[in-house]
Amino acid sequence: MQTRSELLKDTFRKAAHAWELINKLHFTEEEARCLRKHIDQPSYADLHWGVFIPAIKGQATDAQQKKWLPLAYSQAIIGCYAQTELGHGSNVQRLETTATFEPSTDGFIVNTPTIAATKWWPGGLGKVSTHAIVHARLLTNGKDYGIHAFIVQIRSLEDHQPLPGITVADIGTKFGSRAYNSVDNGLLRFNNVHIPRENMLMRLATVTKEGKYVHSNVPTQLAYGAMVNVRKSIVMDASYSLARAVTIAVRYSAVRRQFGVQDGQPEMQVLDYMTQQSRLFPLLATAYAYRFLGQWMSSLYSDTMACFENNDFSTLPEVHACTAGLKSIATSTTADGIEECRKLCGGHGYLTSSGLPDLFAVYVPSCTYEGDNVILLLQVARYLMKTLKFLGSGKEPSGTAAYLSNVTELVSKNCEVAKESDWISPKTLRYAFEARSARLALKCATQIAAASTQDEGFSEASCELLGASRAHCELIIVTRFMGALEREIPGRGVKNQLQILCNIYALSLVTTRAGDFLMTGYLSPEQVELAKSQLRDLFKKVRHNAVSLVDAFDYTDFYLGSSLGRYDGNVYESLYNEALKDPTNASAVTEGYTEFIRPILKQQLGTSMSRL
Amino acid sequence: MQTRSELLKDTFRKAAHAWELINKLHFTEEEARCLRKHIDQPSYADLHWGVFIPAIKGQATDAQQKKWLPLAYSQAIIGCYAQTELGHGSNVQRLETTATFEPSTDGFIVNTPTIAATKWWPGGLGKVSTHAIVHARLLTNGKDYGIHAFIVQIRSLEDHQPLPGITVADIGTKFGSRAYNSVDNGLLRFNNVHIPRENMLMRLATVTKEGKYVHSNVPTQLAYGAMVNVRKSIVMDASYSLARAVTIAVRYSAVRRQFGVQDGQPEMQVLDYMTQQSRLFPLLATAYAYRFLGQWMSSLYSDTMACFENNDFSTLPEVHACTAGLKSIATSTTADGIEECRKLCGGHGYLTSSGLPDLFAVYVPSCTYEGDNVILLLQVARYLMKTLKFLGSGKEPSGTAAYLSNVTELVSKNCEVAKESDWISPKTLRYAFEARSARLALKCATQIAAASTQDEGFSEASCELLGASRAHCELIIVTRFMGALEREIPGRGVKNQLQILCNIYALSLVTTRAGDFLMTGYLSPEQVELAKSQLRDLFKKVRHNAVSLVDAFDYTDFYLGSSLGRYDGNVYESLYNEALKDPTNASAVTEGYTEFIRPILKQQLGTSMSRL
Repeated sequence: MQTRSELLKDTFRKAAHAWELINKLHFTEEEARCLRKHIDQPSYADLHWGVFIPAIKGQATDAQQKKWLPLAYSQAIIGCYAQTELGHGSNVQRLETTATFEPSTDGFIVNTPTIAATKWWPGGLGKVSTHAIVHARLLTNGKDYGIHAFIVQIRSLEDHQPLPGITVADIGTKFGSRAYNSVDNGLLRFNNVHIPRENMLMRLATVTKEGKYVHSNVPTQLAYGAMVNVRKSIVMDASYSLARAVTIAVRYSAVRRQFGVQDGQPEMQVLDYMTQQSRLFPLLATAYAYRFLGQWMSSLYSDTMACFENNDFSTLPEVHACTAGLKSIATSTTADGIEECRKLCGGHGYLTSSGLPDLFAVYVPSCTYEGDNVILLLQVARYLMKTLKFLGSGKEPSGTAAYLSNVTELVSKNCEVAKESDWISPKTLRYAFEARSARLALKCATQIAAASTQDEGFSEASCELLGASRAHCELIIVTRFMGALEREIPGRGVKNQLQILCNIYALSLVTTRAGDFLMTGYLSPEQVELAKSQLRDLFKKVRHNAVSLVDAFDYTDFYLGSSLGRYDGNVYESLYNEALKDPTNASAVTEGYTEFIRPILKQQLGTSMSRL
Repeated sequence: MQTRSELLKDTFRKAAHAWELINKLHFTEEEARCLRKHIDQPSYADLHWGVFIPAIKGQATDAQQKKWLPLAYSQAIIGCYAQTELGHGSNVQRLETTATFEPSTDGFIVNTPTIAATKWWPGGLGKVSTHAIVHARLLTNGKDYGIHAFIVQIRSLEDHQPLPGITVADIGTKFGSRAYNSVDNGLLRFNNVHIPRENMLMRLATVTKEGKYVHSNVPTQLAYGAMVNVRKSIVMDASYSLARAVTIAVRYSAVRRQFGVQDGQPEMQVLDYMTQQSRLFPLLATAYAYRFLGQWMSSLYSDTMACFENNDFSTLPEVHACTAGLKSIATSTTADGIEECRKLCGGHGYLTSSGLPDLFAVYVPSCTYEGDNVILLLQVARYLMKTLKFLGSGKEPSGTAAYLSNVTELVSKNCEVAKESDWISPKTLRYAFEARSARLALKCATQIAAASTQDEGFSEASCELLGASRAHCELIIVTRFMGALEREIPGRGVKNQLQILCNIYALSLVTTRAGDFLMTGYLSPEQVELAKSQLRDLFKKVRHNAVSLVDAFDYTDFYLGSSLGRYDGNVYESLYNEALKDPTNASAVTEGYTEFIRPILKQQLGTSMSRL
């Protein structure tokens, strides 16, 4: 365990070294991103390249880009994205920081009116950034025009001291011993800080010299395009992170033996237990499911951008809802899944050398950033309710919501599965997920319609709405996995294995969400039993290839960083050797022995110890 | 973040200081335990007092106790409990360490034959203990008598150096930045270490001078008495830890505001959202449920010990199964519940200053120690299957399993709830939980009976068996909560509030386990809907008193250690002030600026940076 300062300094060193390599080897932007990712230790650079620069590209005018991008690309300035405040997160419209236009100086005066208005969380802000994109209420001519973005220099480019009127600091330590402690998430306060008028990011709106607020003719929807891309990356990362945890847990479960065999024989491999398989194999399947989902989201992004270029924004509500929900489900499932993998490794999963505690601690914030997962699901719910409301009015749902136009049949026709093997038909599975989703959504709509106001109904039904949104998203994931398997897949037997995983993914949802399927009357208890039974068969089928299926994720031992997840299976030697490297083992007699242990053992309390 | 060595030294200092106080103030054992608990930083002393000494009391003869207990009570020796090995945890019978009797020296030779046989995990072993209770296979006259316990001195009482033949070290860092990193969990290997014959703990069996193995006449069941007491403590600790997390989340949810109200008005308190209530209030109810459960387990322990004293061990199987299951359910639910509370605090829950990350990291090992939670539930399942098998044979189930003698009615009579308010009858709830448990257990029994062998059937049905065990335990918890409310409870309105919490606890289980209730046919979907609806009403009733109900847990701000959970609600000031105390904020310009940041900003790569 390093001290926080040591860890930060080490992170700065790695970032600088990477930057040197990137320049020396003339890396492309994508290669540079890939290198930073493989440092596997989050840093200010992730925010500079991943958020600050894209924000300038998305929100600055061409002239502004021409000014700021070269500075940012060369890291002559280092930037961060300061939106969230201490008292304000998801509800961006209620941010309190103000930027008041002052015609006499042709600039804005930026202020932090309350403690709750302190900018809080931006990565890279605490110790490194020289500039911040600050979200603030734009006030001009006595009127509040809502939240806009401004570039504010916060530190001197000469000596890195905070500029006058700026209070900036690190917000302190976070979950885990490493994880995001390598990032200088920061706080920021403004006391009458003047910035030039041109520092407002003016792609969507401008303020004239005279203080007049003017909308540009750029469609506001364009901002959502970038969001789809970000969510695609988050889903891909979910797959990578979950795959990493699953790799460790599967490999270790093949090494670890416990109980189950007669005297003299070795014990049973933990991986052979149904209790282990039933928790681990669905996660293995999920890691694959998200991989295909991410690929599909890439093409969804391209399609969406193509529409936008033709000024066609009609698919936006569906794309927005779908990607919001997928981000939510994928990150929540992955966070829980990593922790489940840790538990599946028994006591040893609690050791840092298992690699799992840190993987969890570094992953969980993704449930909060880029949209709180609960709030995102409620957005999906609003979309579903709206879609149902306008059914038959000519506004037919498209894309991932197209199935809802078939709602009448979906709510009336029950499942026809009569034997185990009926369950592995893609058509049957797809229909089951459609029926579940449609029925849950319709039930919510009915409940809301019965309330005195729509708002009250929505609020009262919000837990059920979360369930309906989850069902909608899980349907999308199941069908995207199936869709991917309709194509040719190279490698002998590969497709067959993926087919098994796809069925495991779908059927494990059928059984864990049995309550949904039974509540809506789509399945009978007997049909759920058949699904369980089919699932057990599938577990047996995948057992043999489980280790190969995680090997296929192709993580190096170095990157995995796990004594339990080693490719060669030498788990115990590795744990032992890692332990001996711990700094506390540098001497046989511990630090503190003379002061705090020897006096106890020698019964010298009150003499040598009275100074404690 | 301290380095590990700093943290350990700090822990030793606190333990020494506590020991000085305990002596100076002539504390009783119970007062001393209480003081150590309030240090709120686990240490070697917890293991010395909580495991080493009780093990001597339980497993040593009177003569041995006379020798060892005074040394241990005065801490002239410090001990730990070395059972688990690197390759062997739950399956104690397969430990590999050997203790071979050597008549010529009238002693045992202790050996570690493989890497996997390395003792691994014992707290207090790594850096502090002078003695260890070592579990090893007893070999004498060429015969293996299985696992027995031996006291082995591992460090010199003069200079604390490991004794010859002993390899001892710390196993390295664990989950979290603090949590159990303050404990020196250790590894231990023996290379022909000689110990005197009398160091075998001989209460249950002895080895004579001649090497003859002799059972004593002490009933082996006595060992299980202590286990009941340990599990009672674990359940009580579950309540304390969950209550702590719930206190933080409830108080913060009353302070935090977000969305929901018209312009100009303050936003809505997060605690008013149904989505927040539906996750938080069941956990609040659970913390109370476990409190009453722990109290009941105390009396169960006394009752059991009274029976044991009369040589009546007939209740043991039921008591063992019930407490095993309750330990499992309470710790799993609490670990998940703490993490849920962290998520309910949004982004700020990720900060160390929220108190929640460390609470989680320090709590989760309880899912593994004193019995892995999955294995414990499988033990419950074995008991349930056995009970059903012998039904009607005269061996009628008693205690918490008594309801199973009513199985014929429980599997045939369905629920009669016809309106929301029907759900809050204790009789209705109790019957529903009994029916669910009995039906799930019977279904498993049928499935097992149909298998070709009982072992295969048990293994095949193991996931369903876990479900049946969970149902059995949740029934116990619900009925113990109800039982506690049958008594007088002082304080105006207190009982009424507890009644509401009890109903929330029970109904939130009905709705989250709806799948169970529907699969077994005991409830109809409509009845589950009525339960959901009743639950929403109960949430509204408890909302008003939610803050008082956590205040009643009576945690001081100092003990809670959470900026979010402060009694006075000054959350944002507190977060802000805590942040400024972080050592990284000691200087405005960060460590590492000159070496790793300035050269980037100044575009001096390849010159000043080429040395990186």
